[in-house]
Amino acid sequence: MTHTSPDFRWPVRVYWEDTDAGGIVFYANYLKYFERARTEWLRSLGHAQEAMRANDGVMFIVTDTSVRYRRPARLDDVLDVTVRVQHAGRAQLTVAQQAWRGTELVAEGSIRIGCVDAGTYRPQRIPMSITRSIPQSPPG
Amino acid sequence: MTHTSPDFRWPVRVYWEDTDAGGIVFYANYLKYFERARTEWLRSLGHAQEAMRANDGVMFIVTDTSVRYRRPARLDDVLDVTVRVQHAGRAQLTVAQQAWRGTELVAEGSIRIGCVDAGTYRPQRIPMSITRSIPQSPPG
Amino acid sequence: MTHTSPDFRWPVRVYWEDTDAGGIVFYANYLKYFERARTEWLRSLGHAQEAMRANDGVMFIVTDTSVRYRRPARLDDVLDVTVRVQHAGRAQLTVAQQAWRGTELVAEGSIRIGCVDAGTYRPQRIPMSITRSIPQSPPG
Amino acid sequence: MTHTSPDFRWPVRVYWEDTDAGGIVFYANYLKYFERARTEWLRSLGHAQEAMRANDGVMFIVTDTSVRYRRPARLDDVLDVTVRVQHAGRAQLTVAQQAWRGTELVAEGSIRIGCVDAGTYRPQRIPMSITRSIPQSPPG
Repeated sequence: MTHTSPDFRWPVRVYWEDTDAGGIVFYANYLKYFERARTEWLRSLGHAQEAMRANDGVMFIVTDTSVRYRRPARLDDVLDVTVRVQHAGRAQLTVAQQAWRGTELVAEGSIRIGCVDAGTYRPQRIPMSITRSIPQSPPG
Repeated sequence: MTHTSPDFRWPVRVYWEDTDAGGIVFYANYLKYFERARTEWLRSLGHAQEAMRANDGVMFIVTDTSVRYRRPARLDDVLDVTVRVQHAGRAQLTVAQQAWRGTELVAEGSIRIGCVDAGTYRPQRIPMSITRSIPQSPPG
Repeated sequence: MTHTSPDFRWPVRVYWEDTDAGGIVFYANYLKYFERARTEWLRSLGHAQEAMRANDGVMFIVTDTSVRYRRPARLDDVLDVTVRVQHAGRAQLTVAQQAWRGTELVAEGSIRIGCVDAGTYRPQRIPMSITRSIPQSPPG
Repeated sequence: MTHTSPDFRWPVRVYWEDTDAGGIVFYANYLKYFERARTEWLRSLGHAQEAMRANDGVMFIVTDTSVRYRRPARLDDVLDVTVRVQHAGRAQLTVAQQAWRGTELVAEGSIRIGCVDAGTYRPQRIPMSITRSIPQSPPG
């Protein structure tokens, strides 16, 4: 059986605020771009994070980030940022993300997020309403 | 004669990166929101800033900002940011900007930008192609 | 009678994160520099803001900022940021701030901060322990 | 043979600008903290980056970042950020970095930086004056 799960994509525009004196996007800002895309991906699945915190008392925190910066991006570029779940655990998700400028891969990384109690920061089970809506990757 | 010049509007979403430990949008970030809207307003008039720098050798720099923060905005809010030219000089523009959440005014300010040589930072006449495309306000 | 109240000064180093593609400090970041200096000024008077929130249930929020950017600052520059109380009210402070590179004035502004309840954001009287420690300006 | 190479340490204070609505330091900002420490480490070896660009026509760019966020840091915390060279190549350095709050490890990561031509972004040999001043790790 073929499983086609096109990645979620979210466009991001590069503004002055994103650049540095090298004339390119400051590398730390790709973490922001990746997060905007994850947020919109969750929203596309029906989950606004502010509501999650208010209703379920839980929030996602980022526990690990690994990013490779492949090409410089510049002012006025539009980047397409993708989201794909690599691994879904009980209380953690690992998400593969890429930033594309047209057909050029600009940056890519792997982000691990954990679900925690919004007050105590202790690990919590990811709400079923979320895990149910995450597309399962095919085996292997 | 009636003059109707609806302000330019640009929507901005509030992400984690924009908030602070007070639970609201960090005030300095409204300057970023305002600039994204000005950039998109210029683009809507046909002027990409990276191209301006490459072709005309000029760029806009911000020389004065004055902002009043009226209401807190929060994670997941969508703000509509407006742009209206208050005054257009030879080498400077003063722009009135507001951030709205629905019918609530969240922040408003006045931003003065100057046109400078991209190498020397000396004041330059704003390219005619830009001034021509800026709507003239009616005499007050 | 002469009144000498040397301004509080706090040094700030310009890093890559602070610059933009124009090769200079991104203007919005002066609001961050100004806030670091205000925070250290409050600390020098014995007031840590996290403790203020925990103990008194109040926090300062910024309600108005007005900044003029006079000269570009660049990577590796050290700026001296000053703090001087212009006006102290019951629930608000207005603070004049400047950023100097040696004897050159790089940016200056006026920041109004309000004391609010950390939960409701309603205006609160500034704790006496703070107002008592703010140097009074001589009558004008 | 004992080899003692105490890591370079640089203190960083957490300000409002660094926090997010979760009440803690926004994770992307650890990349900024790490960079401040690397910059000061280079400076301690006699290398200011702005001068490097002006004199040698080269600059360092970040090509890979891998960070694990272990504990939340909060407003007013002071973090000690460390720098240790893991691997020094012809045109690249890999640096291990950690952020400590007292005896608690808050975040740690590995950052790879490459030396490039400041105009073309092509890889360049790291200036000898720099490689000579980098402490050599003992054979593992």
